[in-house]
Amino acid sequence: MKTNLARIQSDLETLSKFNSSPGQGLTRFSLTPEDRQAREYLREELIKLNLEIYEDAAGTLFGRKAGTEDHLPPIMIGSHFDSVKNGGNFDGPAGVFMGLEIMRVLVENNIKTKYPIEFVAMIEEEGGRFGGGVFGSRAMVGLVDYAQLQRNKDADDISMAQAFEDFGFDPKKIDTAKRNPEDIRAFIELHIEQGPVLESKKKDVGIVDFIVGIMELKIVLSGRPDHAGTTPMDMRADALSVAAKVIAEIDSYPPLENNGTVATVGVLNIQPGAANIVPGEVSFTIDIRSKDYSSIQNVKKKILSSLDAQVAKSAVTAEVIELLDVKPVEMDPTIIDLFKKHAEKCGFSYEMMMSGAGHDAMIMGAITPVGLIFVPSKDGRSHCPEEWTDYDDLQKGIELILEAIIELGDEVK
Amino acid sequence: MKTNLARIQSDLETLSKFNSSPGQGLTRFSLTPEDRQAREYLREELIKLNLEIYEDAAGTLFGRKAGTEDHLPPIMIGSHFDSVKNGGNFDGPAGVFMGLEIMRVLVENNIKTKYPIEFVAMIEEEGGRFGGGVFGSRAMVGLVDYAQLQRNKDADDISMAQAFEDFGFDPKKIDTAKRNPEDIRAFIELHIEQGPVLESKKKDVGIVDFIVGIMELKIVLSGRPDHAGTTPMDMRADALSVAAKVIAEIDSYPPLENNGTVATVGVLNIQPGAANIVPGEVSFTIDIRSKDYSSIQNVKKKILSSLDAQVAKSAVTAEVIELLDVKPVEMDPTIIDLFKKHAEKCGFSYEMMMSGAGHDAMIMGAITPVGLIFVPSKDGRSHCPEEWTDYDDLQKGIELILEAIIELGDEVK
Repeated sequence: MKTNLARIQSDLETLSKFNSSPGQGLTRFSLTPEDRQAREYLREELIKLNLEIYEDAAGTLFGRKAGTEDHLPPIMIGSHFDSVKNGGNFDGPAGVFMGLEIMRVLVENNIKTKYPIEFVAMIEEEGGRFGGGVFGSRAMVGLVDYAQLQRNKDADDISMAQAFEDFGFDPKKIDTAKRNPEDIRAFIELHIEQGPVLESKKKDVGIVDFIVGIMELKIVLSGRPDHAGTTPMDMRADALSVAAKVIAEIDSYPPLENNGTVATVGVLNIQPGAANIVPGEVSFTIDIRSKDYSSIQNVKKKILSSLDAQVAKSAVTAEVIELLDVKPVEMDPTIIDLFKKHAEKCGFSYEMMMSGAGHDAMIMGAITPVGLIFVPSKDGRSHCPEEWTDYDDLQKGIELILEAIIELGDEVK
Repeated sequence: MKTNLARIQSDLETLSKFNSSPGQGLTRFSLTPEDRQAREYLREELIKLNLEIYEDAAGTLFGRKAGTEDHLPPIMIGSHFDSVKNGGNFDGPAGVFMGLEIMRVLVENNIKTKYPIEFVAMIEEEGGRFGGGVFGSRAMVGLVDYAQLQRNKDADDISMAQAFEDFGFDPKKIDTAKRNPEDIRAFIELHIEQGPVLESKKKDVGIVDFIVGIMELKIVLSGRPDHAGTTPMDMRADALSVAAKVIAEIDSYPPLENNGTVATVGVLNIQPGAANIVPGEVSFTIDIRSKDYSSIQNVKKKILSSLDAQVAKSAVTAEVIELLDVKPVEMDPTIIDLFKKHAEKCGFSYEMMMSGAGHDAMIMGAITPVGLIFVPSKDGRSHCPEEWTDYDDLQKGIELILEAIIELGDEVK
């Protein structure tokens, strides 16, 4: 079954114009004029297909194609169309246009399935405007309430509740966005990889088996801010010296797990932070991700034991704060098998991979079987103006999901 | 010869009132109303002693007691009376009141010396208002010109030239502050230690033999800011990982020199600095100090060789920038011997030490023999409201210099 490359390219290029930061990458925050422009474009395309169009109270746009047994729960396909600030054109929209192009092909070829199929386009996945993120899926899973909408505010102090109201939604009805497991047959997403693996291994698509769990720690080391010239080495309580010894070892732990586990120190702050003062306080974050929760625990344990050992040798004290502890989410094995089978049929090379970043599919996994396909990211870049996926790579991902959907939807010939 | 403890205490307490940040430590910037109040207090005290009072074009206040052979060059004694922002009451004034109290005792006891003796009180040693620092001594050595005064500006964009003019000095005459080696017999300073050595070793005074040389390096490591979740460990160019491995070793090098050499990393900045992004760029400073210039070179060499080794193992590149390369300054051996002899006579315990911080004495060393005495700093603290030296500790330092001055000035009995 063939999709239309020119149409996919035109979709992406059109959506890229709905941008509040032209010339500085793409910025399309939720519930803004750019959101409305994107939403209108999607709605018009869905209207052309004669789909049943509706929105839920979380601002998610749906386009439903009835099943021949329409009481069955729908298979949902799509992603999000909001962006980070000064991001790129593909993170989110690539998956939205997967949904749209598949709907087009199904309609144009008059393909009938027992299960209904629903196009899904969500907002605030990035949390770019109100923080938090994966908002549309969290609402569908029932993790959002009105109080949250009142609490979450943007940089101009506008609450999410206010923004929904101004946009024409009723925030008090947010509870109605909630779906139950019996309401959805499956949720299938396509997303750019946001990493270098597919490109470097020259694979067409990535079939995701796990979305990683994430442990985020903050370590605060307290020493004494002495004068760098007048304090002998053996009379110092140098917080950075301890931090460096701990951080220097961190990248040696994840490879021992042998399953793609990663650990990163991305933030480190020094007080007072002057060239001639011994660091009195250092705080740094550790981000550990793995598809195997026990690997996260192993790496954490090694880091904390190294921390204990270094602190014991010094006059510095340590505090450990756990900021995040998210368990890994497994993609549905039946859907994975479908992806593998059709990748082989289509002649697409694929890589089994874990997703190192969170996606709406991760949240939807709480109520329905989920599938997630990655397409290659040029140079592994994302969340930046340089973010890029070749259109024919994107097309392969779409065609793979199309074939899987037809089988999962139980085609009626 | 006895000094007056109550008078020393009263001097310090009076000067502490001339403060633009009461309740938040002491701030007395140069050429401000607080500078004028302090200057007026010092002038009145000098007037009581019938000294010849004058100021040079750099704002340094002098009080001259004639020698019996008054054509001989004077011995200068004193320090600075400006402060850092939100600093303490002792850094600077302790040495200024050493000078004042010695003048009082010499006059009161009618002690005559062949060499003239001059009280000296300098400003902008800290560089708190205009940056740079050790200003009064730099002007005496001839390192300041009018163009610099026009260039150096404070936080309100007022040039040093303008501030001098507003205060009543003629900045165009700054060159006249310059002295030649034949103009000064010696410069002797007292300063708080700003470190923990005297307190922890329970010594009355420190006799400084060297002011350390300082090498300041900035290392810039460039990697790639990849996503912390989607980039496998072996495909990263993590600038912080390399930095940590280099920094972790740094504190092991100075002790091998066995001469009090120190090395400090006090500043470290990460770009982009987010918990979920691999550090793409890290820059950090290294401050190496030693009384032995070859030790500075040894430590530098070890750090750079460790840096080379770590960079070679990674996908990160390094740039090394030399920000500062100041040679150690030796205090005058004759003056050191005088200090030792009189410390023993007075029954003061002393420690031979190097000064890890720069002082006016370091600059004055370029044109005249210099001597520097340290008095204990409580908990080694300085440049903060907690800065403290017990008055009787200060008194011992003053009495030691008094005795040395009488001999160096060649007393006429």
